[in-house]
Amino acid sequence: MEKKRVSIRDLAAILGVTPSTISRALNGQGNISEKRREQITKLAKEHGYRPNHIAKSMVANKTFNIGLLLPEFTHNYFNKILAGIESVTYQKGYQLLICTSDELQEKEEKSCLTFLDARVDGILATAGNSSDDLRHFENVLKDGTPLVLLDRICEDLNTSYVVTDDFEGSFEAVQYLIDSGCSNILHIKGPDYISTSFNRKLGYTEALKKNGMEYREEFVLKGDQKAFEKDLNAVLDKHPIDGVFAFSDYYAYDVIQILNHRAVKIPDEISIIGYADEPLAQYISPQLSTVKQPAYEIGKHAAEILFKIIEEKTDEIITKQLKTTLVLRGTTKGT
Amino acid sequence: MEKKRVSIRDLAAILGVTPSTISRALNGQGNISEKRREQITKLAKEHGYRPNHIAKSMVANKTFNIGLLLPEFTHNYFNKILAGIESVTYQKGYQLLICTSDELQEKEEKSCLTFLDARVDGILATAGNSSDDLRHFENVLKDGTPLVLLDRICEDLNTSYVVTDDFEGSFEAVQYLIDSGCSNILHIKGPDYISTSFNRKLGYTEALKKNGMEYREEFVLKGDQKAFEKDLNAVLDKHPIDGVFAFSDYYAYDVIQILNHRAVKIPDEISIIGYADEPLAQYISPQLSTVKQPAYEIGKHAAEILFKIIEEKTDEIITKQLKTTLVLRGTTKGT
Repeated sequence: MEKKRVSIRDLAAILGVTPSTISRALNGQGNISEKRREQITKLAKEHGYRPNHIAKSMVANKTFNIGLLLPEFTHNYFNKILAGIESVTYQKGYQLLICTSDELQEKEEKSCLTFLDARVDGILATAGNSSDDLRHFENVLKDGTPLVLLDRICEDLNTSYVVTDDFEGSFEAVQYLIDSGCSNILHIKGPDYISTSFNRKLGYTEALKKNGMEYREEFVLKGDQKAFEKDLNAVLDKHPIDGVFAFSDYYAYDVIQILNHRAVKIPDEISIIGYADEPLAQYISPQLSTVKQPAYEIGKHAAEILFKIIEEKTDEIITKQLKTTLVLRGTTKGT
Repeated sequence: MEKKRVSIRDLAAILGVTPSTISRALNGQGNISEKRREQITKLAKEHGYRPNHIAKSMVANKTFNIGLLLPEFTHNYFNKILAGIESVTYQKGYQLLICTSDELQEKEEKSCLTFLDARVDGILATAGNSSDDLRHFENVLKDGTPLVLLDRICEDLNTSYVVTDDFEGSFEAVQYLIDSGCSNILHIKGPDYISTSFNRKLGYTEALKKNGMEYREEFVLKGDQKAFEKDLNAVLDKHPIDGVFAFSDYYAYDVIQILNHRAVKIPDEISIIGYADEPLAQYISPQLSTVKQPAYEIGKHAAEILFKIIEEKTDEIITKQLKTTLVLRGTTKGT
């Protein structure tokens, strides 16, 4: 199958006029009779002629496309961010071009190049959790393409971003565990190199400190890894654990599975709070208490900031931090 | 913020040579000394020069981009399809540009135009469930851009596709319900206008017929709508229902919630089988029996077919139908 796209030249040949006549007729310019213009428009339509959008956008320096880089869509959180972004781009008449990085540095770099090559008018991006090399984002900024980061902050990158207050959200969750009687609280921490892991752990440690409770290194376990079950069982064997604050709902679910194997009563013996309010939080029983992030709003605000930068051609760095909500369900006790 | 991109002209001005010298040096052509070539390459690198990919691809008639149109990502099914596609495109060195239609005709049409304007080398698409107007896909084919459909067939469209055998998958599920003792089986049907709804309902009716059971119109309810709870309660009040075959796991979950309100014992009093094996099927208790679709393989095969068409420039229509697997869990009895 060969690409066959009708060109202005083809239309000109059919009517025996110059390509310039066709072009002027279709662009509503120049000294052309209405009759001829109608004839040309009709012919263009019949032959499925579409103006060369790329060539056009090279002149206008606009494509009305926005690049969106997200790690993946298996977490519903990123779906809700997408919905928030689309609520703005759709209304503005822009199209989203989405690339996923699978948290891989290489795919993240390639996606940035693809966006620049496609001449997108701006980029919204969540940095993958494996990347501490940020040159691809620096190149986007150097290129003059507006960039707004979502969800995860890259401290070294001088650009606009929208995040949630992960520190406060985590602090509040751990404070609730303490208020409901927990005194030996584990933290299941997230992947290295991402700001959300750092901030959620900080909320945990600061809540302990504020309540005069000792921070113990052995009470912080790394989630989502092969040895997790062994690690958790070891600390449960040794210490009278009565609370767990997990980096994500999925990590919390892993904890619940292991506690079920040990026939631990939730929340009577151990309380659990997850993070993000993923759908699974309501599917499992008991339903999971969790810290709900305003994912839709994150996407919406990030898109609004991006359009402000595009439309006002401003160099201003705009940052926004949104609040979380503690959602109490069946895995925690009352205070 | 203004776009500033270093051009060949800029580099030429810095070194006091012609743009053509710069171009020949960077493209490894022409009669240029190694020393000069090195000097130019170094300068280009320092100034972050990237060849104008769009202009280049207009000449090569290739962008190494594939357009992917999916309805949404809230169903994990589409995530797995994406992973399958990426396993092929990534290895081939192609980049995916993703657009979501939210099952809206208008967004589907716009996405097709965006893909054509971006000069993608091919398109993979799942038709939204609201579209019976297929002109946008016809235009893609007219344009000469290879198109492979995924998951849902559009009978009137003469193009390649990969689907699962929904008829067989549904037939097998209903046969299992009958074999395990169910004789009054409801079907919760899917949205109109998509082939999967049609085929799953057909599997249900044919299984009843083969077993000499009467097909009753009032045993087929439309899922995912306001009156569903009322509709289901009405039929449960009137008939001794003992089995449910649902169009999707989410529909099955809705049924389970309503049955829980009525204190119906699952599977002792009513057996339930869903469709797709979404993550929720394993999160709920009892875990949901379901028809598992090979989503990853659908994506992989569709991408492979697309590359065959692109690389061999063939007009051949290639179709593939993959088998489902019945996964038995806690919502069904043994036979």
